[in-house]
Amino acid sequence: MERNDLAALLYTENHEVPYYECDVTNRMTPAMILNTIILISEHQNIELGLGIDFLDKFNLGWVVVQYEIDIERMPVMNETIAISTQATSYNRFFAFREFWIKDSNGETLVHVKSTWVTMDRTARKMVSIPEAVILPYQSEAVKRMPRLKRPTNINESDDLIKKPYQVRYYDIDGNGHVNNAHYLEWLTDVLPMDFLTTHEPKQISLRFENEVQYGHMIESQVTKPVESEGSMVTHHQIVVEDTISATATIEWRSRVE
Amino acid sequence: MERNDLAALLYTENHEVPYYECDVTNRMTPAMILNTIILISEHQNIELGLGIDFLDKFNLGWVVVQYEIDIERMPVMNETIAISTQATSYNRFFAFREFWIKDSNGETLVHVKSTWVTMDRTARKMVSIPEAVILPYQSEAVKRMPRLKRPTNINESDDLIKKPYQVRYYDIDGNGHVNNAHYLEWLTDVLPMDFLTTHEPKQISLRFENEVQYGHMIESQVTKPVESEGSMVTHHQIVVEDTISATATIEWRSRVE
Repeated sequence: MERNDLAALLYTENHEVPYYECDVTNRMTPAMILNTIILISEHQNIELGLGIDFLDKFNLGWVVVQYEIDIERMPVMNETIAISTQATSYNRFFAFREFWIKDSNGETLVHVKSTWVTMDRTARKMVSIPEAVILPYQSEAVKRMPRLKRPTNINESDDLIKKPYQVRYYDIDGNGHVNNAHYLEWLTDVLPMDFLTTHEPKQISLRFENEVQYGHMIESQVTKPVESEGSMVTHHQIVVEDTISATATIEWRSRVE
Repeated sequence: MERNDLAALLYTENHEVPYYECDVTNRMTPAMILNTIILISEHQNIELGLGIDFLDKFNLGWVVVQYEIDIERMPVMNETIAISTQATSYNRFFAFREFWIKDSNGETLVHVKSTWVTMDRTARKMVSIPEAVILPYQSEAVKRMPRLKRPTNINESDDLIKKPYQVRYYDIDGNGHVNNAHYLEWLTDVLPMDFLTTHEPKQISLRFENEVQYGHMIESQVTKPVESEGSMVTHHQIVVEDTISATATIEWRSRVE
């Protein structure tokens, strides 16, 4: 366990990207970025004695509220990447965790900022973060949390592309909830294939509002891509009937072969 | 590269099963079994100089026709498994490849038998297997291929459970085709959740008939589980309009916690 410039403990692991974590262009999918960073943070939790067994004693679970993902370049098939994480800072109700994905030259490919809360498992309600579950990370106690970029809301007048998706059995993880990475799959899959093969995300702001459940038919809605300050931008939402489950804004760059 | 009791070269790699390759019961999903064994066979191909670049020279691709998967126990979350493969035997048109997944005590958890053909990429037609792409595996040349158990066809009179699935952008792999593992996802996802959480596959016979395409709406159809010789058995098919894309028969055992 090494120490970063900042106070919080930094945890790093290598990951070799298999073909089945990649899309048709052999680049890692945005959903697999989320899956692998969460895997590495779980490994840090276990190393510090803060794994699921420990949280069970408090009847608590960590729940992510928001991600801001900056992408310099997507990892590619068979590439070995180094994934690092630290629980940077926290206040009474929120914890701020960062992740970095670097290539073999130490260049940062992806930087993820995320905001987390602790949820009482029985009441399914947010509770203040007990010191016992946060202090071992050596996070910095702060008054104000770093502000992540919020997704832009979709307006009723926007011209939308929509597609229905069935929430599947295999979308449910070991906690009995839909794995968050699937939201990112639904959010992006709705875009036309010729757009997805010629663009890659530059920045993703993703916010979770309400949980979807097994068996739900969700609808993924996206504004038609428009140019803004030299990038293409799309605004997204996942809805179940009239309830918004997640929102996102994605800035895209043209893909270079 | 070690040698097996049989003639063909055996290739082995370890794999640690991350949470996102598991289902709600923290067992590896059938689809991820296929993804990981194919990864390991790709690594053997590369080690022997028989990777995609080499096949490109012949304008050929390997295509799997049928799997027979015998499961003693599914690998579980965080378990380190050893995955082995060998290209056991071949004749003019077919190659027979086996895979073994073993636990840390060397016990076999999963044994997969599979039949492959070489396909001309332009004509999308099966061609006889060139010696150059098969000899380096030291496979045994045989007259008769081992017979894999064929799935039982569904009858029109069968009482079926059906569910539609959209073929998604992320279902397409780097070759531009739907990754075969997704068929297994559609085939099993259609079953009720309370069946899937209380049973695990004991044997899966899976046969590919016709390729599905991006944008297709496929229907997964399954007979209601019935008991046969002490096991539950289900018969499956994936259809696109009137065309059968894949068939499967799955024998299930009750899950022991």
